[in-house]
Amino acid sequence: MRDAYHEELDSILMDLAEMTNSVGSAMASATTALLDVDLELAQKVIDEDGSIDRVYHQIEMRAFDLIARQQPVASDLRTLVTSLRMVADIERAGDLALHVAKVARRRYPLSSVPPAMRSTILEMGQVAQLIMTKCGDVIRTRDVDLAHELERDDDAMDELHRRIFGQILDLNVGLEVAIDITLVGRYYERFADHAVSVARRVVYLVTGELAS
Amino acid sequence: MRDAYHEELDSILMDLAEMTNSVGSAMASATTALLDVDLELAQKVIDEDGSIDRVYHQIEMRAFDLIARQQPVASDLRTLVTSLRMVADIERAGDLALHVAKVARRRYPLSSVPPAMRSTILEMGQVAQLIMTKCGDVIRTRDVDLAHELERDDDAMDELHRRIFGQILDLNVGLEVAIDITLVGRYYERFADHAVSVARRVVYLVTGELAS
Repeated sequence: MRDAYHEELDSILMDLAEMTNSVGSAMASATTALLDVDLELAQKVIDEDGSIDRVYHQIEMRAFDLIARQQPVASDLRTLVTSLRMVADIERAGDLALHVAKVARRRYPLSSVPPAMRSTILEMGQVAQLIMTKCGDVIRTRDVDLAHELERDDDAMDELHRRIFGQILDLNVGLEVAIDITLVGRYYERFADHAVSVARRVVYLVTGELAS
Repeated sequence: MRDAYHEELDSILMDLAEMTNSVGSAMASATTALLDVDLELAQKVIDEDGSIDRVYHQIEMRAFDLIARQQPVASDLRTLVTSLRMVADIERAGDLALHVAKVARRRYPLSSVPPAMRSTILEMGQVAQLIMTKCGDVIRTRDVDLAHELERDDDAMDELHRRIFGQILDLNVGLEVAIDITLVGRYYERFADHAVSVARRVVYLVTGELAS
């Protein structure tokens, strides 16, 4: 039977995984808002970032309290300190969803996404949500193979990121669109990086080895 | 007299401050490389990022060891856990200097910076170095007033960031330049954000209050 202390430790990890769901959904909504020029949905993503931040501070406080009160042994301490790093990555990914939503809002009622780039942006949004969802699964299951799968998803994101720069040039888009798409591409790419970073930390907890 | 444990704690903070110097210098060199189309200097910044990463891992390991071995009391524990967060911010700022250097290298022998934008990029590089230098001073002195000064420097960076988007449009630059400058502008702006974030953590250590 687990004692109250280990239950709290598990509960922190489950809340971290839950947080990846919120952040993944935020990025999906931000992508839809961007593609559909949906001001209301963009505003919803912007408004809800505050609740992601509140969860972040709660998890941070609980992990810190547990370290301070329980003087955990090495492996539990490593889990708690690592969870402090993971929560910061996930919160930052949430900020990036917020940034995508802000781009959608800024150009309203115009669209930042030329028709010929819609599918690339859609794919970036889908890979972003998928990689964050898998990141949550990695936290829940501590599945090292799944964590490695995220590296391949991240390669797909990098490929999309390169493609989008090519499209900006090939389509000879206007400068405002070029700025928006360059920023948005960067937001998706960083979002995926944060998911990978969290997955790597889980691998580190399981194997004791830091991925390069 | 300080015991060995508190000496190690101080030493970690001093090494953090030292790391801000390396990172600030890296951004200054990257800016020069970008403005002067200096491939050798760009390569130097890229090569030296590895040593910043090594210092990062060393500081991380030492802070972690100290938590694990010494079961520190609340305030020391807070300092150590916070130093783990600070070192991650400073390392990430180093990555952003690396990214600026990579833009310089990618376009070589062409320049990414149109003559009319040189002074803005130069100012962004200068504010970046100054804010990171002050960040090191805040770590060393725990001077809360100085920490607040960084917020104003960050406002200046945000103003430069806005100016650069205006210049992209007003100068009607080419799309490759628009992409490069949009990315570089973002790198400087994030670099300053990381310095501010570190300074806020110091304020938190001193006052127990998290800045919004």
